[in-house]
Amino acid sequence: MPKALDYHAMLQEALVEARLGLAEGGIPIGAALFDAAGRLIGRGRNRRVQDGDPSMHAETNAFRNAGRRKSYRDTVMVTTLAPCWYCCGLIKQFKIGTVVLGESRTFQGGVSWLKRQGVKVVDLKDKECEELLARFIRANPEIWNEDIGE
Amino acid sequence: MPKALDYHAMLQEALVEARLGLAEGGIPIGAALFDAAGRLIGRGRNRRVQDGDPSMHAETNAFRNAGRRKSYRDTVMVTTLAPCWYCCGLIKQFKIGTVVLGESRTFQGGVSWLKRQGVKVVDLKDKECEELLARFIRANPEIWNEDIGE
Repeated sequence: MPKALDYHAMLQEALVEARLGLAEGGIPIGAALFDAAGRLIGRGRNRRVQDGDPSMHAETNAFRNAGRRKSYRDTVMVTTLAPCWYCCGLIKQFKIGTVVLGESRTFQGGVSWLKRQGVKVVDLKDKECEELLARFIRANPEIWNEDIGE
Repeated sequence: MPKALDYHAMLQEALVEARLGLAEGGIPIGAALFDAAGRLIGRGRNRRVQDGDPSMHAETNAFRNAGRRKSYRDTVMVTTLAPCWYCCGLIKQFKIGTVVLGESRTFQGGVSWLKRQGVKVVDLKDKECEELLARFIRANPEIWNEDIGE
């Protein structure tokens, strides 16, 4: 039987990205994509502010940095925040099998829909993920609203 | 009453991108984003092959090239091919109001779902869009399958 993956340890890779984003003045959301053995294949962060790029949500950026692959079925997407509809669409289209959330209190995105699509979703209810983003949103509500199309 | 938009003329902007992509050796799918008055705000093409970037589908690339905006509600996304789930997620999250398809015969993506979400979808059933992509898929089935996560 394969060794169980340590989702809490994997979340740390996404959190490093979220903190980097915050240090750059960006929205502190990070993500990391792992293969079935738990090896990191790509890490990324929301780049709206840093690059003026509305298409780079954290999950999309991690997916991009993982590069081209034939299949994503056995990969695990770890993200500090529940993915929005855009990133849920990415997960469905590329058949990413498992999604690990740092938290889903600040924002739920399309997580219920993802579960109905057969994606395994694990919510770690991590306090640091929640507090990092909550502080940013309190200070920059307009950037956050822009990022989720509100 | 505002002047009706000429979707066929707008599709030509997306087709220019699809042809450029083909000339670069890439997947010939193009897209263009317009404002409510029909002014072009961003154009893009699938960049998987050219940039080794699996995150740049045509619609995402056009959205990216349009840059940051407060709202996309009145924008029109014109694409040579029905958008996949990833790009449908983008359209839903950012509340793009209208999607114009060159064709949906080769691939249907999440178009039925988009309609149920209240997005206006217009299918132009354009022969050139269809033939451009069909020829590419016949010659490069493995690149196409990779692009849609099959």
